[in-house]
Amino acid sequence: MRVDSLSIAATTAAIFTGCAEAAGPHPPKAKNFIYVVPDGYGIASQVMARDYQSVMNGAGSVERPNTAKIGVDNMVLGTVRTQASDNLVTDSSASGTAFACGVKTYNGAVSVDDDGMPVGSILEAAFLDGFKTGLVVTSRITHATPAVYSSHVLDRGSENEIAAQQIGKTHPFGPFVDLLIGGGRRHYLPKAEGGTREDDVNLIEWAIEQGYTYAEDASDLKEAAEKGTVPLPFLGLFNLTHISYEMDRDPETEPSLLETTKIALDTLEAATKKTRKGYFIMIEASRIDHAGHANDAPAHIHETLMFNEVMNYIKEYIEDHPDTQMLSAADHECGGLTLIDGFDPTVLARAQYSNDYLMAMWDNYNGEDRTGFLRDELVPLYGLGNYTDADIQVFLNIYEEEGTAPMGLAILKAVAKEGGVNWSTGGHTAADVVLHGYAKGKKYEDMKRAIGGNQNNINLPGYIEKVLGLDMSKATKALRKDGVGWVEKRDQLSTIKRRAEAAAKDHAH
Amino acid sequence: MRVDSLSIAATTAAIFTGCAEAAGPHPPKAKNFIYVVPDGYGIASQVMARDYQSVMNGAGSVERPNTAKIGVDNMVLGTVRTQASDNLVTDSSASGTAFACGVKTYNGAVSVDDDGMPVGSILEAAFLDGFKTGLVVTSRITHATPAVYSSHVLDRGSENEIAAQQIGKTHPFGPFVDLLIGGGRRHYLPKAEGGTREDDVNLIEWAIEQGYTYAEDASDLKEAAEKGTVPLPFLGLFNLTHISYEMDRDPETEPSLLETTKIALDTLEAATKKTRKGYFIMIEASRIDHAGHANDAPAHIHETLMFNEVMNYIKEYIEDHPDTQMLSAADHECGGLTLIDGFDPTVLARAQYSNDYLMAMWDNYNGEDRTGFLRDELVPLYGLGNYTDADIQVFLNIYEEEGTAPMGLAILKAVAKEGGVNWSTGGHTAADVVLHGYAKGKKYEDMKRAIGGNQNNINLPGYIEKVLGLDMSKATKALRKDGVGWVEKRDQLSTIKRRAEAAAKDHAH
Repeated sequence: MRVDSLSIAATTAAIFTGCAEAAGPHPPKAKNFIYVVPDGYGIASQVMARDYQSVMNGAGSVERPNTAKIGVDNMVLGTVRTQASDNLVTDSSASGTAFACGVKTYNGAVSVDDDGMPVGSILEAAFLDGFKTGLVVTSRITHATPAVYSSHVLDRGSENEIAAQQIGKTHPFGPFVDLLIGGGRRHYLPKAEGGTREDDVNLIEWAIEQGYTYAEDASDLKEAAEKGTVPLPFLGLFNLTHISYEMDRDPETEPSLLETTKIALDTLEAATKKTRKGYFIMIEASRIDHAGHANDAPAHIHETLMFNEVMNYIKEYIEDHPDTQMLSAADHECGGLTLIDGFDPTVLARAQYSNDYLMAMWDNYNGEDRTGFLRDELVPLYGLGNYTDADIQVFLNIYEEEGTAPMGLAILKAVAKEGGVNWSTGGHTAADVVLHGYAKGKKYEDMKRAIGGNQNNINLPGYIEKVLGLDMSKATKALRKDGVGWVEKRDQLSTIKRRAEAAAKDHAH
Repeated sequence: MRVDSLSIAATTAAIFTGCAEAAGPHPPKAKNFIYVVPDGYGIASQVMARDYQSVMNGAGSVERPNTAKIGVDNMVLGTVRTQASDNLVTDSSASGTAFACGVKTYNGAVSVDDDGMPVGSILEAAFLDGFKTGLVVTSRITHATPAVYSSHVLDRGSENEIAAQQIGKTHPFGPFVDLLIGGGRRHYLPKAEGGTREDDVNLIEWAIEQGYTYAEDASDLKEAAEKGTVPLPFLGLFNLTHISYEMDRDPETEPSLLETTKIALDTLEAATKKTRKGYFIMIEASRIDHAGHANDAPAHIHETLMFNEVMNYIKEYIEDHPDTQMLSAADHECGGLTLIDGFDPTVLARAQYSNDYLMAMWDNYNGEDRTGFLRDELVPLYGLGNYTDADIQVFLNIYEEEGTAPMGLAILKAVAKEGGVNWSTGGHTAADVVLHGYAKGKKYEDMKRAIGGNQNNINLPGYIEKVLGLDMSKATKALRKDGVGWVEKRDQLSTIKRRAEAAAKDHAH
C-alpha cells in the first residue's frame, strides 16, 4: 500500500488525545516532601547498575543472570515525557523548570517562561508558606537543576547570578533556601579569591553575615553536624566546581550524597518538629548525567548505584516518618546508553577511576616513559582487559594529534566495546524517563492513583502543590510584584534565547 | 578514593533484595484475558511514534513540541526486566517462554526449561480449564512469540515442528488453539506445494479435516467474517512468511492487526457468551521488532502506531466488556534506538515504504538507468531529503561491492542521521521495557496494586493465572503425563542449546 503521510495522520488522529491531561484523584496530604532528581538517568542506566550489582555481589553471573530488584526498582510509578517548549530533546534547565515550576520553557532557561518572565518554583512556594527548604546536590549548587528551584535567569550559563539569587542577595525574597549543599564554590567567590565572580562580592562571607553556617569540606561538615544535624540556615560548598565522581571521591574531603542526604533530612526534620509546616527538599544525584555526557560507563554505574542507595535510605526514612512523601524522575536520558549483545558488567567493574580523574593523571604525568605509563598504569585503571601495543600506539597517536580528551574518549570506547555497552551521543536524548515515588502504607496506593502512569514533566510540581497544600501562582505573583527588573538582561531576550539554546547543546551538563 | 570492586559490592549489597519477589495483593478476577506483545518495542519506540503523531497531525511541530499522550501512554503500569537464564540480553523465545510459562530459560528455547523439559503455557492452562484460546500476530504464526504459547521445541528455528504442534497434530493435547491468525503459511505446506515442510504433510488440509475454517487472504477473511465473527476453530495464514509491514501492506490481500484483532475478540466473545469460562488470547504487534533489527525507523514508527491503535481499541473494548482484562509488555528492546539532538519526525514521515520493500524494488529493477532509478525514485521513497550525486555513487559502490542489503542499510543510516535517530545494534538490548495494562473502573486500581511497578517477566503469567483462576502446573503435568518423547531431539539438548543460542543471536527476529 502506498502510504500517504497525511492519510496516516488522519487515520491515526483518533489515538491523539490532545494536550490537556485529566488530573489524578485527590493526592494524600503530607507535611514534608522530598523530590529526587537522578540527572540524565535513563531506563538503561538502572539496568546497567542492577546487572553490575547482581554480578559483583555474586547473586548472578553473566552466564547465569539473576538480576533481582535493587533500590528504585521497588518504587516505580510510571514514565515521564520530557521535551522542552522549543525542542523535542530537552536540556536540564528546561526540564528542571518544568518539574520545579510546572511550565514548559526553552532550552537554557532557568525558571523563566518563553517570554523571559520569572515563574515561581515549588520550593519558593513552600518558603512563602512557611516551610523549611533545602537543596542537596553533587554538581555545582549553581548548576541547572538546583538553579531552577532557587533562581530566575534567562541563560543557565549565568551561574554567578544564580549564586547571588539562591543565597538571597539578589532574589526578591532575600535568603529563602535554608540549606544548600553541593559544589560550585567558585561562583560564590570573587576572582581575587579563586572564584569566578566579577563583582568582587564574596557570597560566602555575605551568607555568614546573614546567619548561615558554612562548611567547606567533609570535616567542617562533620564538626557542624556533630549531633547529626547542622544549624540552619546552612551552606556547604565542597568543591570549587562539581563534587568529585563517586569513583574518585576522597571521603576525607567530600561527603557522599548519602551522607549529605542523611544530615539534610535530619536537620530539616528537627527544625520543623514542633511546627505545623514541614519542609520541601530537592536532592540531586547530579553526576549520572555528567558520566553520560562523557560516555563513561563505570562512572555512570557508580553514580547510579549511589542514587539507588539514597533512594533506599529515603524509603526507610519515610517508613519512620509517614508524614513525608517522595517523588523522583530524571530530567532526561543522557548519552543514548544501550546494553548490547555481549554486555558484561565484569569488564566495567575493573575500572578504578573516572575518565576525568585518569585524564588528569595523564596530564599531570611528568615521568619519561609515557608509553609505559599509559600501557601499564593508566589503561588498566580504565578497566580495559584486551589490548595490544598497537592499541596503545593508536591511543598515543590520538593524544599527539588531538589531545587528552579525544584519547580518553578512545579508551572509554574500547572499554565500552569490551563491556558490550554503546553510547550514541555526547548529549541528551528524547526518551521518556522512569517515574519513582514513595509514601507509607495506604498513602502509597493513593499516590499511585494520583500520579502513576505516564506523566508530562510539568504535571509533577502540581502533585507536590496539592500534597503540601501550596499555591505556586502566589510565588509567581510575589516574584513579579515589584516588577521584574531584577531578572538580568530581559531586554536581550531573543539574543539570549539563541545563545542559551546553543549553550544548552554545547555544554548541557 | 581508590575504589575496590569487592568493597563496592559489599557496601552496596544492602540494596540488593534477593530474587524472591513478594506477590502483589489479590488481583481482580476476570472472565477473559488479552495479552498483547509489542515485540522489540523499547521506551524510545513510543516516543518516536508519539512525536511523529503529534508533528504529523499538526498538534505540535519540531520547533514547538506538543507531544501529548497517545494510545498506550494512557495504560502505563510500570517496567519489566527481561533477561534470559543464560544471557543478560534475551531473545524473543526465552523472554516469551518467561511471560507465557513463568520460567526463565535459555535463548532459543520455546517453552522448554533449561533441561529441555516442556513447561505449560498460560494458553495451554486456559485450554485445559475450558477456556477458548487465540493467537493473532503479524509475524509467521510459527515465530517465537506465538510459538511459546502453543508448542515446545528446543530450538526456535524448528518452525515446521512448531506448526505441527500448534495446529494440534503433534501436540499431546491435539488441536487446542481455537483461533490462529498470522503469516507463516510456508511452515504449514510441504515443499511440493510451495512450503518448507519436509514431511510431505499439508497442515492446512489436516486442519480443515479437523474442522478448522481456513482463510488465506483478506477477502477470504472478509467472507468468513461476514457477520463480524468467524467460525471456530479458525486458521488464517495471510502470507508465506511474515505479514507485510504496515507501510507496505496491501489491504486487499492482508488484513491489518487492528482488523484481525477486532474479528478475533468478537469471535471469542461470541463463542463464550453463554459459557462460564471465557477466553485467553495473545495478540502480537510482531514486526516492531523486525523494523528494529533492520534499523528501519519509518517502518518502526508505523508498526508502533498500529500497536497503539490496537491497544486503544482493546481499551474501549474492555470499557464495553468489563469482564475482560489486558496486560501488555514487550519481550525486549531491539536496535538500541535513541533519539538524539536534531530528532525530526518530519524526515521520517517522508518515507513511503519499508527498506525490505524498497530493496525488493531494487532487486526487481530491470531498466537500464540504475543510477537514475536510485537517485530519482528509490532514495526519495526512503525519505532522504539531502543527498548529492556523490552520495548516490557511494550507495552504488556499496551495492557493487557488498550487495543489496548493505546498500539498503547505508540509505537507512543516511535517513536516520537526517532524522536525528540512532540505532546502536542490529540485535536486542538489555533495557527494561514498559508494562501496560487495562481493566475497567476500580478493577484497574486493583490491577495496578497487584502487578504495577517493576516486574520480572516471569511474574506476568502468574497474574493472569490468578485473574482467570487457572493452574499452570496442571498444564505442565499434562504435557509430561505420557513422557516427553514427543519433544523432538531431547537427546541432543546440549548441542541444540549451543546452536539455539547462536541462532538466537544470528536471526533473532
